[in-house]
Amino acid sequence: MSLVLDAAAQDLLFREARTANTFTDEPVTDEQIQAIYDLVKYGPTSMNQSPLRVTLVRSPEARERLVSYLMEGNQAKTAAAPLVAILSADIEFHEELPQLFPHYPQAKDFFGDRGVRENAAALNAALQAAYFIIGVRAAGLAAGPMTGLDFAGVQKEFLDDDHAPLMVINIGKPGEDAWFPRSPRLEYEQVVTTV
Amino acid sequence: MSLVLDAAAQDLLFREARTANTFTDEPVTDEQIQAIYDLVKYGPTSMNQSPLRVTLVRSPEARERLVSYLMEGNQAKTAAAPLVAILSADIEFHEELPQLFPHYPQAKDFFGDRGVRENAAALNAALQAAYFIIGVRAAGLAAGPMTGLDFAGVQKEFLDDDHAPLMVINIGKPGEDAWFPRSPRLEYEQVVTTV
Repeated sequence: MSLVLDAAAQDLLFREARTANTFTDEPVTDEQIQAIYDLVKYGPTSMNQSPLRVTLVRSPEARERLVSYLMEGNQAKTAAAPLVAILSADIEFHEELPQLFPHYPQAKDFFGDRGVRENAAALNAALQAAYFIIGVRAAGLAAGPMTGLDFAGVQKEFLDDDHAPLMVINIGKPGEDAWFPRSPRLEYEQVVTTV
Repeated sequence: MSLVLDAAAQDLLFREARTANTFTDEPVTDEQIQAIYDLVKYGPTSMNQSPLRVTLVRSPEARERLVSYLMEGNQAKTAAAPLVAILSADIEFHEELPQLFPHYPQAKDFFGDRGVRENAAALNAALQAAYFIIGVRAAGLAAGPMTGLDFAGVQKEFLDDDHAPLMVINIGKPGEDAWFPRSPRLEYEQVVTTV
């Protein structure tokens, strides 16, 4: 075996973890989300930018508003999930760099241009979104990430001009018939080349 | 404990894993990269798009060319790393959708517009880049991801118009003084809000 990570952890995070489309009624607590965050916050980003922000949609009224911005095929499962989160990128992340990158006080100055910040925030928040999905699985929960939605509508309804939504994630214990058969993956030779 | 993942795995992947700036001479084999890929290929992407591509820069001549496109502060460590990989997003990923999403033959038709493909590839390849970083750590190796580089130059030198570079990653066993002190992370309350 070329991996050090134990097989049970490999299964939990990757091999047996699946994108869930149905969930049980078991609630997902703030303590679980805090434990997930306290683990995945250590995942690396460029200059420790850490632009990911998470909006937990807990009130029934907010849930209803969110569902109206999803593609029809994503609506029923999102209405029924124990917890739904909007993941977004904070385009003003540079304001936190003096806290996040204290040994290099000039770091904030690299990000005076909003276009530069938008690109950096999009990449690094996406990295953190992936860490978050892994963290949900580390908590023994299933994630159902979705990008089939009206992004401008979700931004206007729940966020502001400085927070760009990346995806919405349903979170919970998988229910009955929670997933489709696993789709094929690309072969190593289709993905990895050597120069 | 709110997490199911065992503590040793939490440490290996997140808490004790660090972005390495120095490495030992121990080689990183193709078998290790294949084992990493065979694990992280299961990480979820939208419609199983799987746009990440990996270029392993193994020849000394290619390494030298790559180093010339990096910011000065990244050059010496990249010249000395056991293995260096360019991660890129395949903007023509939709050509593989009939293989990747076989139960929905129309999937490819969603991506006729190149701008739509560029956005989807950027997000989903970034998710997969994060899974890859986690996979490098799962192999007991350290990753040194870098975005301080001339992206257009790397694309022209190593890729083509349909492959957008995301980052370069140094990979190996951490060496002496491999990392800076851990930078602070944002508090939970700075990241997570509830509606």
